[in-house]
Amino acid sequence: MRPYVFVNVAMSADGKISTKERRQVKISGKNDFLRVDRIKAESDAVMVGIGTVLADNPSLTVKSQQLRDERKREGKDEDPVRVVIDSHARTPPDADILRKGTGTRIIAVSAAAPQERVEHLKKVANVVVAGSESVDLPEVLAILYQHGVRRLMVEGGGTLIWSLISQGLVDAMYTYIGSMVIGGRDAPTPADGEGFLHESDFIRLQLSEAEPMDDGLLVRWDVRIIR
Amino acid sequence: MRPYVFVNVAMSADGKISTKERRQVKISGKNDFLRVDRIKAESDAVMVGIGTVLADNPSLTVKSQQLRDERKREGKDEDPVRVVIDSHARTPPDADILRKGTGTRIIAVSAAAPQERVEHLKKVANVVVAGSESVDLPEVLAILYQHGVRRLMVEGGGTLIWSLISQGLVDAMYTYIGSMVIGGRDAPTPADGEGFLHESDFIRLQLSEAEPMDDGLLVRWDVRIIR
Repeated sequence: MRPYVFVNVAMSADGKISTKERRQVKISGKNDFLRVDRIKAESDAVMVGIGTVLADNPSLTVKSQQLRDERKREGKDEDPVRVVIDSHARTPPDADILRKGTGTRIIAVSAAAPQERVEHLKKVANVVVAGSESVDLPEVLAILYQHGVRRLMVEGGGTLIWSLISQGLVDAMYTYIGSMVIGGRDAPTPADGEGFLHESDFIRLQLSEAEPMDDGLLVRWDVRIIR
Repeated sequence: MRPYVFVNVAMSADGKISTKERRQVKISGKNDFLRVDRIKAESDAVMVGIGTVLADNPSLTVKSQQLRDERKREGKDEDPVRVVIDSHARTPPDADILRKGTGTRIIAVSAAAPQERVEHLKKVANVVVAGSESVDLPEVLAILYQHGVRRLMVEGGGTLIWSLISQGLVDAMYTYIGSMVIGGRDAPTPADGEGFLHESDFIRLQLSEAEPMDDGLLVRWDVRIIR
């Protein structure tokens, strides 16, 4: 068993989630910010890849005090469980995701992670070892499910999203499309990694909604399960 | 003076226009095919980059007999002028864009193109030399305008679109977003090239329309002119 997994990503009109230098850029606007905060507050856990932690140093906390209070009233931590997929234990012990906010932090590493760094991280987070060379994502999702996570939000980046989607571990994808062109053959996209070579392997989606928001467009896709 | 320039591109939900091997893939459906044929028939010229010619060998002809007849009744060639941006004169003399359909073909090369290949191409197309190392796009657009082209459709690929957009030479962009994930950090996107490094340089768009079409979404953006 695994949680319901949805991706939330903001990209430019030409499909970039940041510049080629991975500089964090403003793609959406105020209404989308509120939407993301709300769906985060409605999730049991939020997951990011180590690339995003190193590039953006996000805290992934719920920002709205009202939403934090609601979670508290429901007997939850004010922030969802925060999960980093970090095969080689590169999360800085002073990363904002560990320092800011409340609740459980989980760092998933592989057996190949240097023991010394794993020991450091154990002092500031729950460390889960899954997979030999890289993190075994189905195993991590199963562990999260065992710990009560039923609804998981994936915030990026493109490498983690690719890994999850290509392994059939994603149920839906929210894509905010911003009103700009960023360009760049080397700029990160919503799904990087190796990519599919054959049309028959593509992951098929179903358009669920598309609505103008701020200066751009919010699109929701459901993943079609054909397995 | 230059023509009105609009881009038409189809990408996956994760912003890819083909696989990393540049294999041509079906991203849109029947209704989008008809739409693209119609806007092509309404254009005076269609432009592609040499990468697209080499990867896809497109003919860029108008497919519908009715639309061809309409153009004929209006005293036009059945196909729009077809233009290849080809800095080093690599267009194969037997490319479909040269062999199939009617009307004028223009191959724009730079002064750096090998003379022998240019001479070969002169036998099968109108060759325009513009720019020293790579094709000078403003000059090509000015020449097209002088030859009566008022409405130019750009069919890709990502490198040409990037060059045009980053030089402020695009007025609008139609993006068909298909219902699939292709993935791949090396897969081509609607705007490749160098990419912008700074947020202040991004080309800003205005959402003009978004409508479900086939299994995906057709989005039209207008480029905001702030110069």
